[in-house]
Amino acid sequence: MKRLLTLFLTVMFVAVFAANGNAPKYIFLFIGDGMATPQRMVADEFARHAGHDRLIINQMPYHGTTRTGSANSLVTDSAASGTAIACGEKTYNGAIGIANDKKRHLESIAYVAKKNGRKVGIVTTVTINHATPAAFYAHRTNRSQYYEIGLDLIKSGFDYFAGGGVAMSDNKKSKEYQGDINDLARKAGYKVISRESEFKALKQGNGKVLINANIPYAIDTPENAVFTLANLTAKGIEMLDNSKGFFMMVEGGKIDHAGHANDAAANLREVLAFDDAVRVAVDFAKKHPEETLIVVTGDHETGGMTMGFAATGYAMYMERLAHQKCSAGMLGGIVKKAKAEKLKKEKKDLSYEDIYQLLNKYYGFIFDEKSKSPMKLSAADKEKIKKAIDKGNLPNTARLIMASKAGIGWSTGAHTALPVLTTATGKNAEKFSGFYENTEISNRLKEMFK
Amino acid sequence: MKRLLTLFLTVMFVAVFAANGNAPKYIFLFIGDGMATPQRMVADEFARHAGHDRLIINQMPYHGTTRTGSANSLVTDSAASGTAIACGEKTYNGAIGIANDKKRHLESIAYVAKKNGRKVGIVTTVTINHATPAAFYAHRTNRSQYYEIGLDLIKSGFDYFAGGGVAMSDNKKSKEYQGDINDLARKAGYKVISRESEFKALKQGNGKVLINANIPYAIDTPENAVFTLANLTAKGIEMLDNSKGFFMMVEGGKIDHAGHANDAAANLREVLAFDDAVRVAVDFAKKHPEETLIVVTGDHETGGMTMGFAATGYAMYMERLAHQKCSAGMLGGIVKKAKAEKLKKEKKDLSYEDIYQLLNKYYGFIFDEKSKSPMKLSAADKEKIKKAIDKGNLPNTARLIMASKAGIGWSTGAHTALPVLTTATGKNAEKFSGFYENTEISNRLKEMFK
Repeated sequence: MKRLLTLFLTVMFVAVFAANGNAPKYIFLFIGDGMATPQRMVADEFARHAGHDRLIINQMPYHGTTRTGSANSLVTDSAASGTAIACGEKTYNGAIGIANDKKRHLESIAYVAKKNGRKVGIVTTVTINHATPAAFYAHRTNRSQYYEIGLDLIKSGFDYFAGGGVAMSDNKKSKEYQGDINDLARKAGYKVISRESEFKALKQGNGKVLINANIPYAIDTPENAVFTLANLTAKGIEMLDNSKGFFMMVEGGKIDHAGHANDAAANLREVLAFDDAVRVAVDFAKKHPEETLIVVTGDHETGGMTMGFAATGYAMYMERLAHQKCSAGMLGGIVKKAKAEKLKKEKKDLSYEDIYQLLNKYYGFIFDEKSKSPMKLSAADKEKIKKAIDKGNLPNTARLIMASKAGIGWSTGAHTALPVLTTATGKNAEKFSGFYENTEISNRLKEMFK
Repeated sequence: MKRLLTLFLTVMFVAVFAANGNAPKYIFLFIGDGMATPQRMVADEFARHAGHDRLIINQMPYHGTTRTGSANSLVTDSAASGTAIACGEKTYNGAIGIANDKKRHLESIAYVAKKNGRKVGIVTTVTINHATPAAFYAHRTNRSQYYEIGLDLIKSGFDYFAGGGVAMSDNKKSKEYQGDINDLARKAGYKVISRESEFKALKQGNGKVLINANIPYAIDTPENAVFTLANLTAKGIEMLDNSKGFFMMVEGGKIDHAGHANDAAANLREVLAFDDAVRVAVDFAKKHPEETLIVVTGDHETGGMTMGFAATGYAMYMERLAHQKCSAGMLGGIVKKAKAEKLKKEKKDLSYEDIYQLLNKYYGFIFDEKSKSPMKLSAADKEKIKKAIDKGNLPNTARLIMASKAGIGWSTGAHTALPVLTTATGKNAEKFSGFYENTEISNRLKEMFK
């Protein structure tokens, strides 16, 4: 009977509480740009293979299948999908916080949260005025209006901005030019910082901040780096926490870049860095279990990534991706640097052998014919690399060979229409179960404030 | 107060009912072979584009992300995944209802249901002793032991078997040969039928049945066909319904075949036929809402299908797939037949022009240079087709061109490790939310009988 009474009281509590204004005090919305199930699971299998836990982003109790198509295409861009996720309305590819009629301004969940007394944070690994974060605070007909989006950033009055700087912050060609966005932000009361020491010194009560951090690919980032998505998220929590709660959008923006580059190893490490940031929120939620909601979604899939490839048949070799120590883009820089050094020291260009050694060091490729390692290159692959060196497109060839060794396929350098996986945990997380349009992320969150 | 009392009574009811033996009276487990999110969503977008409802399989309220890797490979085959889904234990690729030690017999959810008084039905579009259905009733170290699996089928004593016949039913080379499986089934009390008229005449109370139906690809099936997955499912419900309920496994087995063939139009039509079968169960569930559970899953992804392709950039054109009127395999047969007819009538081989006309009729390809249709072939595509005709691999080339016109990519002819989407509706459906191994499908169903 005592047990039934407890149940009865629980039901009463839920019934009363659900009546009105059921928004969690703390809302985290994590968006992996270009991240759908393939990206989430390649990283998951890689982590598991390396003896780590499965990704926390996948382990959440509620799963949803989220359709991403925009108002004018089955395949969305990040502006239309960002707007859908932020504002709850489908619009055309390229639109930032603006309706399909190119006029009507749309209200994002961030503004709704702010109106309801929440502090607001916008965090990303790419520039802060890039499409996805911009959709939460700006209203512009075209995502390339970076300067104007920067003006909207300041106008938003949101509390915590952190990311890879403000693109085109001093664009004097803008019809609305009023000065460098960073200066304007300072005038508007933002503390604008870009140094690690300043970042570390930031404390609750410091007021509004705009953090211009240099955030390379996770695979190219040293282990003890300060400017990581996880650290920006942790600092955000510290700065935003207050008695009325907060809304925080955190974007893993470079998952998409690695997808466009069809660079599997760089891609999965971006997802792991994103997962680290989500862990920070999950740890926070453990201290506020009844008051915190964490939603993890993607804005679209990038690259047509597949967990299997014709060359490897019924197998995948996640461990082979561990050999890759830098992004395909970084590899180009490494070769260039080595070339310059040799020219300076020996007045000679790099030999094929020199470059093979770099490929061995940074990609694990083995050129020795006697090797029994699966990382040994076939004669055909070696020929491809030689040609790529001659043509100057080594990084592209290296990432293709790595993908085929690992058993990962890519069908395009663009986005695809694969629905993304949305997962959720905490208060109201069950609302993100099932099949829904990406607009429902915003709409279901907004509903909680009614 | 009245509302609270209702809630209180509901809670009491649930608390008491959940205590023990909470298995739904009617359990449907639908398995799309080779069906993960890409297959489900290509069909969904195609249906929507044609003005139909979204697929019912995707609309279910609970979604799960189901990992498919087998005991010995990240990329499973249908035997290991069938066994995992049916019996709740990971085993090696090739195993049917047998543990990874190649000895221990595993008990499937179908046997557990039978032990608990339920009638059992096993339905598929492929042969009834193929890997996926076999995992529910047989125990064999190798999926290719078709005859022996047939013997296990009879031994199971399950009530309703329906599919595309028993493969190698009269394999005299088997060490266990005792006669044709169909004859043995008759001796064991099964009504064995293969004619549409017999099928139509089947009625509740007819006893155990084994239906050998000829089921072509859905895209190659006439509209008024009797042997469809939906009709086999409907008949199954009629035959199995009884006061103690039933368990029914229904497989869309040819989704996988069209995936291996990288034939997008055939693939999506298999998924639509599968969805039609699920609709039959959903209609039944409407009459028994408190007593029915429907779970829809896949055993793995096939083909590395992507909803985007390098050639079409940020676009997909689902409507172009509607032009394809037959499977790539059937196209070969159509050309062959036309060739034979022309030879007979005119003593001449088909001209390129004759074949272009067939391609226009069955694939919608337009060879007229003046056409403005997006189905017009480029000079390069025409050249490919000419070469394919000469080489005798026209169907393969036709399906590649169709895929690139529609914006669908395929990365392999094999399976991939992409997790599958599991959806569920009805009693206990919430148990299929979240991330879990495919073994959990069986384990969570079995748990309901405890």
